[in-house]
Amino acid sequence: MMGAVAKPRVGIIGTGAIGGFYGLMLARAGFDVHFLLRSEFSAVAEHGLKLHSAVHGALTLSPVQAYSSAQDMPPCDWLLVGAKTTSNADLAPAIRQAAAPDAKVLLLQNGLDVEDSLRELLPDALHVLGGLCYICVHRDAPGVITHQALGAVHVGYHSGPAVDEVTRSAIVEEGVGLFRAAGIDSQVMANLHQARWQKLVWNIPYNGLSVLLGASTTPLMADADSRESIKALMAEVVRGAVACGYEIPPGYAEQLFMVTEKMPDYWPSMYHDYLHRRPLELEAIYARPLAAARSAGCELPRIEALYRSLSFIDRRNR
Amino acid sequence: MMGAVAKPRVGIIGTGAIGGFYGLMLARAGFDVHFLLRSEFSAVAEHGLKLHSAVHGALTLSPVQAYSSAQDMPPCDWLLVGAKTTSNADLAPAIRQAAAPDAKVLLLQNGLDVEDSLRELLPDALHVLGGLCYICVHRDAPGVITHQALGAVHVGYHSGPAVDEVTRSAIVEEGVGLFRAAGIDSQVMANLHQARWQKLVWNIPYNGLSVLLGASTTPLMADADSRESIKALMAEVVRGAVACGYEIPPGYAEQLFMVTEKMPDYWPSMYHDYLHRRPLELEAIYARPLAAARSAGCELPRIEALYRSLSFIDRRNR
Repeated sequence: MMGAVAKPRVGIIGTGAIGGFYGLMLARAGFDVHFLLRSEFSAVAEHGLKLHSAVHGALTLSPVQAYSSAQDMPPCDWLLVGAKTTSNADLAPAIRQAAAPDAKVLLLQNGLDVEDSLRELLPDALHVLGGLCYICVHRDAPGVITHQALGAVHVGYHSGPAVDEVTRSAIVEEGVGLFRAAGIDSQVMANLHQARWQKLVWNIPYNGLSVLLGASTTPLMADADSRESIKALMAEVVRGAVACGYEIPPGYAEQLFMVTEKMPDYWPSMYHDYLHRRPLELEAIYARPLAAARSAGCELPRIEALYRSLSFIDRRNR
Repeated sequence: MMGAVAKPRVGIIGTGAIGGFYGLMLARAGFDVHFLLRSEFSAVAEHGLKLHSAVHGALTLSPVQAYSSAQDMPPCDWLLVGAKTTSNADLAPAIRQAAAPDAKVLLLQNGLDVEDSLRELLPDALHVLGGLCYICVHRDAPGVITHQALGAVHVGYHSGPAVDEVTRSAIVEEGVGLFRAAGIDSQVMANLHQARWQKLVWNIPYNGLSVLLGASTTPLMADADSRESIKALMAEVVRGAVACGYEIPPGYAEQLFMVTEKMPDYWPSMYHDYLHRRPLELEAIYARPLAAARSAGCELPRIEALYRSLSFIDRRNR
């Protein structure tokens, strides 16, 4: 579909591990990529972006089209938001500034309904999409990213001027095409809510237990009790999704469990946030799914217990 | 009932915070008390037992009738076991050795059915009783104990040669009389199982959360999320007790919650065990109540989640 059309210009809002990885891969594939940075601006402007990837090898992007203010960015056709969900509302002015008039804003984030708070703060002409990243990646230092495994991005339409299914599909396909052109596996999500619930089947157990127990995936998968905790939490997520009207495919949780067993040892993003005393993404990953399930008459006691413990820990950690 | 009868001879098996406190108080009241010690024998034999009590002031017992081996102890009429439930089976030989032929063995411990494993290893002629200590006490150093608040002991009959209710009552009353003679509040428990479930309403939330969240009672009672966790865990204990046929009095959990709010800041015993890398009493306080409730068809998901997390932590801690 992209054929002879000029490649879209891409803006990266929040150049942490996720924004940095996908932005670098797109730039390397020839896209015109512009990076908005805060605390890491000087390091990246001076030394570029470095990626140590177990899949793609050692890659460097230098110079980087880096900006400390969105006012200096050219209008972008696609904006990839890799910042924490806790800062979505704060990012709205930068997104409005950097967006072309009919730009697509793709949130590469975990959690339920993460698009809602941002949507209200953006012009109606902008498309908002959600992206789920199946990837083991983390930031080692300013501008230095380690990619351990996986990488796929699943894309779905959230809201905006595309009201008919055909137009929505075309926009989602364009997004999927961006990633595929950069050598990244990408798929269309027919239903963004459904997909976000599915991703929670992983995030709810592993993110929370990594902080609660101070343990990465390998020890969590090696201990009989944490294995049972993970399975029981996964089963509750599936129950919550079903209560909210989203059927999770049979065997999906078991498959994620097995995939995690084969993954290299991994510290989920919430553990990195905890370690660096950043706010944990508890609202998006725990509070909203719990509230949605409760509205549907479904109690999820293990997830709620985990959420309350994490809230206590998060409050003490800052 | 004790009238002109000679005061019974008391043996203390496991002179930690609990055994040391009650043993010292009984000795101070004129009882003939003999202390069995392991790692703290030399310190106590040399310097005696020191108690810093917010209720009774600063007290010292010196010299102490201290023993490093039960073989050297005279036959005792009452044996108070203040060791951890995790070592009950290992203590059976020492208890048999130190017991008079019809001795009463009183387990001053938390948890469900803690008497069972020991009972099997004792002669039929010995009485086994359970005692629940409502006390804030901890060991600061070998032979040095700090008593922060409370102190009551509730006593109930578990098993032994007393088959009729009258004889059992007389024995329990004798135990209660020991403590009262030492200025300690003590009450008869008509039903030991019921009483153990009631004590779990406190132990299950506070012991576990102190380890899981690294927090003593004051911060746990000051945070909205940990308060809700405590209430939800208490409600599950009450539900488990009811499923097992033990009605908890209405308002009992709420009362414990309020008592804890008024207590001085307190680190539950499980936290001390964790800190000193001793085995946690997970079997007695979590696994047995969970199994009993499950046998009665009752799932307790929050307690189970807490138990599994603590099992993981305990395994890593040793």
